[in-house]
Formats: sequence, C-alpha cells, structure tokens
Amino acid sequence: MSSKRKIAVVITARPSYSRVKTVLTAIKEHPELELQLIVAASALLDRYGSAVNYIEKDGFEIAAKVFNVLEGENLTAAAKTTGIGILELSTVFDNLKPDIVVTVADRFETMATAIAASYMNIPLAHIQGGEVTGNIDEKVRHAITKLSDYHFVSSENAKNRVIQLGENPEMVFNTGCPSIDIAKQVSKNDRLTFNPYEKYGGVGSKPNLDNGYIVVMQHPVTNEYQNSRKHIEATLRAIQKINMPTLWFWPNVDAGADGTSTGIRSYREKYALENVHFFKNMEGDDFLNLLNCSICLIGNSSVGIRECSYLGVPAINIGTRQNRRDRGQNSSDVSYNEDEITNAVKNILVKTERPKSEVYGGGNAGKKIAELLQSLPLQFHKTITY
Amino acid sequence: MSSKRKIAVVITARPSYSRVKTVLTAIKEHPELELQLIVAASALLDRYGSAVNYIEKDGFEIAAKVFNVLEGENLTAAAKTTGIGILELSTVFDNLKPDIVVTVADRFETMATAIAASYMNIPLAHIQGGEVTGNIDEKVRHAITKLSDYHFVSSENAKNRVIQLGENPEMVFNTGCPSIDIAKQVSKNDRLTFNPYEKYGGVGSKPNLDNGYIVVMQHPVTNEYQNSRKHIEATLRAIQKINMPTLWFWPNVDAGADGTSTGIRSYREKYALENVHFFKNMEGDDFLNLLNCSICLIGNSSVGIRECSYLGVPAINIGTRQNRRDRGQNSSDVSYNEDEITNAVKNILVKTERPKSEVYGGGNAGKKIAELLQSLPLQFHKTITY
Amino acid sequence: MSSKRKIAVVITARPSYSRVKTVLTAIKEHPELELQLIVAASALLDRYGSAVNYIEKDGFEIAAKVFNVLEGENLTAAAKTTGIGILELSTVFDNLKPDIVVTVADRFETMATAIAASYMNIPLAHIQGGEVTGNIDEKVRHAITKLSDYHFVSSENAKNRVIQLGENPEMVFNTGCPSIDIAKQVSKNDRLTFNPYEKYGGVGSKPNLDNGYIVVMQHPVTNEYQNSRKHIEATLRAIQKINMPTLWFWPNVDAGADGTSTGIRSYREKYALENVHFFKNMEGDDFLNLLNCSICLIGNSSVGIRECSYLGVPAINIGTRQNRRDRGQNSSDVSYNEDEITNAVKNILVKTERPKSEVYGGGNAGKKIAELLQSLPLQFHKTITY
Amino acid sequence: MSSKRKIAVVITARPSYSRVKTVLTAIKEHPELELQLIVAASALLDRYGSAVNYIEKDGFEIAAKVFNVLEGENLTAAAKTTGIGILELSTVFDNLKPDIVVTVADRFETMATAIAASYMNIPLAHIQGGEVTGNIDEKVRHAITKLSDYHFVSSENAKNRVIQLGENPEMVFNTGCPSIDIAKQVSKNDRLTFNPYEKYGGVGSKPNLDNGYIVVMQHPVTNEYQNSRKHIEATLRAIQKINMPTLWFWPNVDAGADGTSTGIRSYREKYALENVHFFKNMEGDDFLNLLNCSICLIGNSSVGIRECSYLGVPAINIGTRQNRRDRGQNSSDVSYNEDEITNAVKNILVKTERPKSEVYGGGNAGKKIAELLQSLPLQFHKTITY
Repeated sequence: MSSKRKIAVVITARPSYSRVKTVLTAIKEHPELELQLIVAASALLDRYGSAVNYIEKDGFEIAAKVFNVLEGENLTAAAKTTGIGILELSTVFDNLKPDIVVTVADRFETMATAIAASYMNIPLAHIQGGEVTGNIDEKVRHAITKLSDYHFVSSENAKNRVIQLGENPEMVFNTGCPSIDIAKQVSKNDRLTFNPYEKYGGVGSKPNLDNGYIVVMQHPVTNEYQNSRKHIEATLRAIQKINMPTLWFWPNVDAGADGTSTGIRSYREKYALENVHFFKNMEGDDFLNLLNCSICLIGNSSVGIRECSYLGVPAINIGTRQNRRDRGQNSSDVSYNEDEITNAVKNILVKTERPKSEVYGGGNAGKKIAELLQSLPLQFHKTITY
Repeated sequence: MSSKRKIAVVITARPSYSRVKTVLTAIKEHPELELQLIVAASALLDRYGSAVNYIEKDGFEIAAKVFNVLEGENLTAAAKTTGIGILELSTVFDNLKPDIVVTVADRFETMATAIAASYMNIPLAHIQGGEVTGNIDEKVRHAITKLSDYHFVSSENAKNRVIQLGENPEMVFNTGCPSIDIAKQVSKNDRLTFNPYEKYGGVGSKPNLDNGYIVVMQHPVTNEYQNSRKHIEATLRAIQKINMPTLWFWPNVDAGADGTSTGIRSYREKYALENVHFFKNMEGDDFLNLLNCSICLIGNSSVGIRECSYLGVPAINIGTRQNRRDRGQNSSDVSYNEDEITNAVKNILVKTERPKSEVYGGGNAGKKIAELLQSLPLQFHKTITY
Repeated sequence: MSSKRKIAVVITARPSYSRVKTVLTAIKEHPELELQLIVAASALLDRYGSAVNYIEKDGFEIAAKVFNVLEGENLTAAAKTTGIGILELSTVFDNLKPDIVVTVADRFETMATAIAASYMNIPLAHIQGGEVTGNIDEKVRHAITKLSDYHFVSSENAKNRVIQLGENPEMVFNTGCPSIDIAKQVSKNDRLTFNPYEKYGGVGSKPNLDNGYIVVMQHPVTNEYQNSRKHIEATLRAIQKINMPTLWFWPNVDAGADGTSTGIRSYREKYALENVHFFKNMEGDDFLNLLNCSICLIGNSSVGIRECSYLGVPAINIGTRQNRRDRGQNSSDVSYNEDEITNAVKNILVKTERPKSEVYGGGNAGKKIAELLQSLPLQFHKTITY
Repeated sequence: MSSKRKIAVVITARPSYSRVKTVLTAIKEHPELELQLIVAASALLDRYGSAVNYIEKDGFEIAAKVFNVLEGENLTAAAKTTGIGILELSTVFDNLKPDIVVTVADRFETMATAIAASYMNIPLAHIQGGEVTGNIDEKVRHAITKLSDYHFVSSENAKNRVIQLGENPEMVFNTGCPSIDIAKQVSKNDRLTFNPYEKYGGVGSKPNLDNGYIVVMQHPVTNEYQNSRKHIEATLRAIQKINMPTLWFWPNVDAGADGTSTGIRSYREKYALENVHFFKNMEGDDFLNLLNCSICLIGNSSVGIRECSYLGVPAINIGTRQNRRDRGQNSSDVSYNEDEITNAVKNILVKTERPKSEVYGGGNAGKKIAELLQSLPLQFHKTITY
C-alpha cells in the first residue's frame, strides 16, 4: 500500500501540456508523489493536434482519458462541453481518489476540473492564476482562483493579484512559469536542431528557412466570436505582403475555431501563399527551438510574451487576447490590421539586439511545484481574507 | 415585437425563491422588463418543499423547468447535478435568449447558471455576493462574483468585499437584501395571521402555540458531511429537554441532506417528542409571520441573522454555517452542543427587548434591482480592476 | 495476466439483484470467469432499498458504482436517467474492458446498458427476454432483445418468442429463471427462519404472524402514471377491510413512484392500519422464506407469478403489470378494485392445496448461464434470421 | 388554439434529410398537421455537410436545434452522443409537446429519438424499418421497430419483416420510400440542370463531365472501424486506375469517419488524382440529377440500391454496408478490392440498357405518410402479437 501523495493533473489542450510538461516530469520523478495524468477535451482530438500522442511519446502513463468536446459552432457548445466535463471528471476523481487535483491556466473547459474537484472536497491547485488579459478567459481564471486552495503563479504581479483576491498569502507561491523551464533548456541552442518539414509534415509550400523565417500562431478570441474570420484575414494579407518564409500553426479549439480555420482554408483556396507552410502542431521543445531561431513570432499566443520574453525573441502581439499580461521588452502590440502588422515586422528587421527578461521565472518552476505538492498541508476549506 | 429587456431569473431552491420574491414581482410589474422565470433543481421536487407550487400559486408564469438533481448520497452527485444543470440551462438560454441572466446567492448548483450564462456571453447579475461564511458556499459565492457582470449586494461590508475582489465599483450596488422587503411588510403584524397546522399539515404533535413557541430550521453543512447526523441529534436533544412548543422545518437538499433527515426520523421513532410539530415548508410570508411571533429561531438558517435582525427576533445560530456573516444584535452563536443551545434559550426567555437592525437593508431591494436591470448597460466583457 | 473472460453484470435495482444473485455467484465461482459487478441507478439509493448494501454483505466485490437517477416526478426524468446512464456506463466499460456485458430484464434504465455495450461492440447477453406483459417494459424488453447477442430466457414460451423475433436459435437458451434457484433452496423451509421485525425494522404496527399473514408488494405502472395513487388506495382499503396480519413492501423507483408512495403515506396518516407493518426491503432469501410461509401475496410484483409458482404460494395479481406472463396455477388476476381483492383472499383461505409448477425453470439457471458465458463464441455482429 | 396534430420529425444527418424531404413538405402542407422540425447531431455540423443550411434554404422552419455530437475517434463517443441526445431531446419534446414523433431509418443516434419519445409516452412513428443490412445499423433499426407504434416501410419485404417482429399488422404500412418521390421528379431530366463546380465549389481537379462521369460515395462501416482506411484506399486506387472523370462525396459522421477521411486526405497529398473532384455535400435534387446523368455510382451508399434502382442508374456496391437490402437489377456487389471495382466499371461501360424497378415504391410516399400521421389513432401502448 503506497503512502505517496496522488497528484491528478488534468490536461485539456496542447498548449497546456507544453506549459506544464516539466511539472509532470517533476511529479513523476518525485519519490513521494504519484502522478495521475488525465488527458481530456481537445488534447485528445486529431483536429487540435492530438497532444495525447506527444504525451505518450514523452513516456507519461495516462490514468484516464475524458472525451467531452461537444461539437458545434457556437458558444452553447462551449458551455455544454464544460457540463459534460464535470460529469466525466467527477467519475474519474471518484475512481482515482487523488489527494490533490491540479488544473492549468484558464481555458473555458478547465472550469470543469475546478468544479468537480472543489465540489468533491479534493484540494485544488491552480497553475498560472492571477494574470490579466481582459477576455472570457479572465472570468474563468479568477473564478478558478476562488475555487482553488493552492496557487502556483508565474510572476510577482500575479502573486499580488491573487492575494488581493482574498486568498491566504501562505498558499500563494510565485514559482515562475513552468514553460520557462523548457525555454531555459532550449535557449542553449541558437540554430534549428531538426528539419520541420520532414519531422512534422504539414501542408503548403516549403520555403527555405536558412535566411530567417517568421512564425505565426493566432487563436480565435472567444468574445469576439463573430469576427474571427475577419481578424485572421488581416494577418493572412499581412503575411502575403511581407512575403518572407513563414511557418504557420493552426489554432486550438474554442467556440469560433471554425471561423478562424475556415478563414485560413478559404484564403488558401484563393491565393497561392507561396511563402507559407502550415503545421498542425509540434512538440514543445521543437517549437521553442523553432521560435528561438526565428525572426519573430506573430499572432496572439501567450508564448509570445512568455517564453519569447525569456528567449528574447521579438513577438508581434495582435489584438486583445494578451491584454494586460506582464511583458518583457521583446513584444510589441498591434491591432487586427494588415498595415500595423507589416510595420511591426519592418521595425524588428532593423533592430540588432534581442533583450531577455525573467518576468515569468528563472526556469525551475516544475521542481518547485512538485516540492510544494508534496509538502503543503492537505486542505479544501478556506475563507476570504477580508 | 417587444423591445422590453428579457430578464431570466433562475430559482434552484425554496429559500432562494423566498429571498428574491420581491425582485420577481418588481421585474414582472416593470413596464420595460419581461420576466423569464426558470425553476430548477430542488425547487421542483416534492422532497424539498416543491417551491414550484408556491411560485405558481403566487401568479408567476414559469418559462422553463429544469430537472437536474442527480440522486445520490455523496459529493459526486453534487458535482454531477451542476454538470447536468449546465447542459440543460444552456439549452434554455438558447431558447429564451435573455438579455440578462440573474442568479441568486451561493448554493452549489447556482454555479451552473453562472457558467452557462457567462460562457454564452449573456450579461450575468448576481444577487447576494460578497458575503462571508467560511464553507464550500464561499468558494461558490466568490467564484460566481468573478463570473458576474452586475452585483446586487445586501450590505456595505458585502459591497466593499466585492469591490476588493477586483470588480468595477460602478457595477456593484448595495440594494439591501430583497428578503427584507417581505420582512418589512410582515413586521406590521405581531400575531399569527393563520393556523399553521391547518394550512400546512405536517406531522407530529400539535402543541398549543398561544403562550409562545420556538422555531427550528437546521441544514446539513456540506463540508462536514460525515457529521450531519451527530449535529442534528444535539439539537434534537436540546429541544426535547427545553420542552416548549416547537415548530421544526425539514432541511433543504445538499450532499448530506440524508444524514440530517435520517437523524430526525430515527430520533422520532425512538422518542415521542410531544412538544414538536414538523413542517416540510411554508410560504415565505407565513414563515416570516411565524418567526415574528415566535420566542426565537434555533438552527443555522440565514433567516436568523438576516430577516430576524430586521424583525428583532432572537436567533440562536448553531455551528459554522453562518460564520462571519454580518449580524444585528438579535443573534447569539453556539456550537453543536445540547447545553449551549439550552442555555441560549434560557437567556432569551429572560430578556425584555428585541433590538432591530437595518444591516441587510431597508425593505425596498426588489424595486431597486428591477430598476437597475432596466437601466444598466448590457455588457459581458470585464477585466479585473488591479 | 489473466486469460479469464471478464463478465460485466449491471444491476440497476433491488429486484434485479435478487433475481440474478445465483448467476453472480456462479460467475464468481467459475474458474475461467472474472465477475465485474456494476451497481447503478436505484440499486444505490436508500429510498429504494439500497440493494448495494445487500450486495456487499453477500460478499460480492463491486467494480463500479454508477449514479444516474435524475430526480423528478415525470416521465422526462426516466428518459434523462437513461441518457445519463449511457454517458456513465460507456466510461465504465471503457475502463473495465469486459468481454461480455450482461443486462437483466426490462426496467427502463437497463436500456442504457444495452446501448452502451452494443454501440461499443461488446457482446451483450440478456437475461429474461422474450416475456410478455403489455406495458412500457415490453417495448424495452424486446428492443433489448434486438440489441443483444445472447439470450438466456426463463421459459419455453419466451424462447419461442425470442426466436420468432428473428434471433439466431443457436444463441437462445432456456436456462430457466435464476430466481427459481433461490426459491428451490428456500422451499426446504416451511416456517420462518428469522424475525422480520427484529431483523428489518420498518414502521407501523407489529401484528402477530403465528396464525398466518399476507404479504403486499405493489409497484406503480409506468404508462398509468396518473393513476398510481388511486390504484394503491384500492389495495389499501382492501387490506384494511380484510384485517389480517399484513407485511407491506414499499415500491421501487419508477416515474410515478411518488404517486404510489404518497398514496401510502397519506393513507397511513388518516387511518391506523393496525394490522399492517411496512418494510423498505429485505434480503432475497428472507423474502422468499417469508413468502413461502405466507397465506398469499397481493400486488403486481413478478415474484407472484414466478417464484411463487415454483413455491406454490397463492398470488393475487392486481392490474396490468404482469399481463400475459406465463403462469402456474398459483395465481389469480384481479383489477384495481377493493372488492375483487377481498374476494380473492377469501377464495384462498378456503383452499387446501398449493399446486407447484416448473414453468420458470427447475432451479439451476445460475450455473447454466455461467457455463454459457464461458463457452459461447465472442461475437457482436448479427443479422435478423428472416 | 390550434387543434392540428403536432408532428415532430427529428433529422440527424444529411442523408436522412434528403430521404424524407417530401414527407416534411407533405406534413407542412397538410391543413390538419403542424410540422415541428428538429435538426440534430451531424445535420448541424459543417464537417458533415451542414444539412441545416439546405433545410433552411428549402423554406422549412426549424423548431429546435440539438447539438449532441461528442467529438472523439472511437465507439465510446457514439454511445455518449446517443446519451446526450436523449438528455437534449427529452427537453425539446417537453417544450414542443408533439402528438407524434417521427424518427428516420437506423443511424446510431436515432435511438435517442426513439427512447426519448417512447419513454415519454409520445406515439412514435418509424420510417424505413424492417430492412436488412447485417451491421450495427441492423441492431439499431430493429430495436427502434420494437420501440415504435407506427411503421412506414419502403418495400413488401420490409413490411413482412416488421410484422414478423411481432408488430400489429394494422400499424405497418408499405408507403414506399420517400426518397423515391424525389427520384420520380428528377427522372424527368436526363441531363445536368446545373454546373456542379460552380454551384457547390469543393476541391480538387475539375474534370470535363460532358462525356460521362462516375460518382463515388463511400461511408465507414461501424463494426469494421479499424479497417476504414484500408477500405477507402482500395476505392481510391481503383478510381485512379479507371481514370475517368469522377465526382467524390465526403463520408458522413460515424465512429471511424476519421479513418475514412484521413485515408482520402493522405491519398490526395501523395497523388495528384487529376480526374477527381471532391464535394462535401449537395442538395438532394441536384445529387439525384447528377446520379441520373452519371455512368454509375460507386461506394456503399444506400442511394445506389434505392433511388438508383428507380432511376435505373448502375450502382457498384462495395462491401457489407448494404448487405441483404432489397435490390433492383441496377446494382452489382463487390468487395473492398481494387480489381473487382475496376472490373465492375468495365462491365457497366459495355451495357446498353438501364432497367428500372419500383421495389422501393412508386414516388408518392410523402403524401401517404402525412395522411397516415393525420388519421392514425394516437397510441403508445402496444404488445407483441405472439
């Protein structure tokens, strides 16, 4: 009979997996912890990059798979996906009987993890609370903070914010962001360690990458659902105009994903886009290596302000998705506008320095978090501090 | 084609209905509002007092009924009830297309309303946020605050707390608690306006009420699930010992309800309890009239610190359920202990004054809330203020 | 690594458990089978007799518990309970990976078992198909036959009917009903082996049983939902009039259960019923011993025409619930009518013989079924024979 | 207050819509019927041809939309999709209160319609029961027959089979298949009435159609899940070898859809397929017009043995999906084999006659069915006839 603490981590999407991979490794390797890895939602689906394949390839054993994505092209489906998630995860928790449940970040369906765990009186740990963006994610993120018992945040600002939300300061820890752990390892390589076309396939042209390339990753923004297609088209036109070698990543699942995806597909049908290659997904390490060697990142992925700030890779951040998140000096903000995007690229091309920042941590978050999961008192009862 | 604002209010339990009845009336009577009343969860069930019957008798039209209580004697069922609630309510909102959704207080299943509305980009109003109790309700209550766009709170302390949670002060309104609206009307009568036995049936002895009587209402406390039965037995012994005419109300639904209910049933099988009559439920007005004429209330219902503070009815508050809630001078706190309860009753019997308080408002919350629902800008996008 | 066949049996109600207990034992004891016992729906609930407690007491290990009863007083809840059942059982089957799933009889929620298994390409065995009753159960029963791969029926008529439904005769086996296995053991005792009041508690008077007693068990009939209360009242009046010692069992869950239960409770509040004691439930062996020693059974339980026919216990069968089921000579049919019921009892009291019948088998069904589950070819593909 | 009979028809997929379109029209136009059209499952999804768009364009008002497709690449998702369907449809039926519910054919998710309606005591009509194919559809189809109260079948064989299943012959009607109604209209045109490329877009080459063309439509077969990809590749190779102008339609949703779709996509990435154009979907009339003018149909769609038999269009039927269905002389059966497919095409090219058949009806099924829906006695209680 093991007396190890059982730590259930729920992964619901490809980017969440990349983000917390070093946490998973640290839990797995900790002699007094047992990892119960639960893979759910879009992390299981081919259309969204099958994170599950990478997870298995990385050697993690999966304790349970939870299919809960209700297909539909509207916000109702997002709500229902969360409802189904609660139904399924509560069964999983009943079976696995974890000592602590860990939920990551702020995607809509992570609320299912938070509700199932807190309603079942299982201590809940939240990674990456306290940040600010200004969209639906923010409602979700701070609501999860109020349901959580332990907070592993990524920056000092985030820490202060969680405390100001009425959480017990003794349960709020600035561990840094675990995604920086991987960036730290990757930063040692300043050239591509693999051939992206060969290793990851994808579709479209195969521009030569030797003289630099741009990376694009742009997700739909939930509360601007109607505009997803218009937004992506501005970026597509800019990329076509800039006409430099470009590696483009498909968006992840969200209400609206189909707007963005449809926009890209239609544009491709109309225009050749001879400078662009499209990828569905990439292993985290390779993706960061790719970014580290790139001219810049364009889009609205948090990787631009997070890992790229540590790496010093310039990031052109489009629109509202990363609003008010902590930034290093690497990023510049533009609106959904073809010209602003092209001008931002021009500015980057003339710069010679790439300043780095540790605003999101120094690269040892995984181990810190595992240590805390082992040592923190088990508790699910709390009260607001004011 | 009506241009009235459609206001969907979701009622999930008998006490919530009593609490917001004047809000429902004020919305219904407002010339520029259309009430969409949704009755859900235990409010539909016979075992928990069939609030739905009172709602219909009070003349409210029901726009949709949502059955979502999953039967079970554990916390998993509470989680699943919430998941089913999301599935069902998102369909209802899709059909009714409300301009604003209103959710009440902090019962676990109200989270389903909050998630369905916020995920569907429907502006969400929350009545009774910002209070403190220190149990699972508190996680739920503050999480709902973070999902809500408008806050109609009941006291100055609550208002300050919601603002400190990072909500825009312009969207936080101390309207007072709508339950006080009814207390205000009822307070005009200092004698019973009806015969409880005749009007409400119930079971047990029928003690004479002419020389005063005690009212008991004690609910299970979710995170003390295992102890529900022990707790209720302390109260039962106290009541038996005090041996005054007593009117006892069955608890509402919660994980653990069966512990409390079973405790009461077993005790009744063993002992005669000749001074006690049991009711399943009572219309809000009658219940407040009954309290107003009583010697005191015993238990852990919020009515003790809320309506009773306005009415000046002494309340013996047992255990942790109302921890840290704002109080008037009417209430005294005891633990789950037979002797403490009996002593508290003795103290009340020797007092001559019944001081009143407006800590929970002055009795016009319903109209204030309806007015705000009509005039507030429609919005579902917000960001934390710090 | 075991090479035993894994046999998942889903039990959803108390009577189903009693019925197949010897099958469970035979599977458990079979050296080449592994029993995966799944307890679901009302079998888990206190209100319906907590079959789960007896199951555990009988020494069966439970592989999974599935809470899927949606509370409500209407037919919609029955449909939704089945929908939730599919969601939950498919997860359970995914985890347990049974080689064969076994479903029992014809209660509405057993359809969830049949759909989950057949849709997941797991061979499905059905116990007790091919019978006729003429209510909603019949739609369910024959639909399940069409979803099933193996048929273990209880009588020659049932066998012929399943074959006529287009099933491959080689997959249809008249094993007899496993409930008769227990009746066979019990039949050796012609006097009570236990004191029902002491062992099972219950409520009401405790009439002396030494000079004979009547047993009552009457369930609501789904497609006569509105009339449940009226129906039960006819029986209550008859029992009051007959005025012999009576042991009455509460009904199991169904849409309408509350009509029947409420009818009984109201009647008890009004009348003393000094000859009647009420039980919630009883272990199968004790119940059969009780029946075997009784004057007769009154109600609409299938035990009256099934086990009682083997035992020779007279059964007064009320209403439509057992319409067209195979019968021995022990049973007489009456409608929901006080006088018909009283007259039927009078007729029994003057008879001297209690003829027995093996129409439902000879008492070794459990072993036969286990043997077949081990030896039948695994297959989930079939086609109608005509 | 209307006294028209309310007829709810649930459409869950594009082919089902095409099949019963004339029934919908006939109900809509019938003066004593009110159509309540419910669109659900893959009929709402872009990936599966958005039948909903055609439905709206055809002028039908949609009473409710039900999103219930759970995304996943396994059979469990099919089971769960059905469970969610029951949850959602029971709410819809509760709201719409239809007098009769109509379900179509035998796709797995139609079981949700059948269960919700029959459990809620709503008379259930089934279109296209009694046929034989020999896969999971067959379990579903005959189980639905056993849950249904009225049977509108497409052929004499089907009628006899439903009666042999124990259904009351007075409730079994050979109306012919409503898909033939459209075929009848379309058969008047022996040349293309539209330009497929212009009207429906699609992807791939645009071969000249003037000298004849082949149509391909091949769906995954549920119980051969693992082989979907291998099967589709045989057809792809055959089409590449035949090298005639080909119009290929994407498959509909099923567990395994992704195997088939992935197979097609991969093949396209590797080979040019210059003779092939791919369509997602097409309006029913246009599709039949296209078939009527084609050399032949290849695949496993039921349209090959059904509409094509009336039209006299040669159909090469691959694999087991249409096993044992009634056929005219137009169809030939082959296995998943490149050579068999190519040879079958060669045989067709040398034939001069295209014999027609009325085995599936004479083209007036829609009106017959509407008439019956209006005149049949409302009933939901039935019993097996033997």
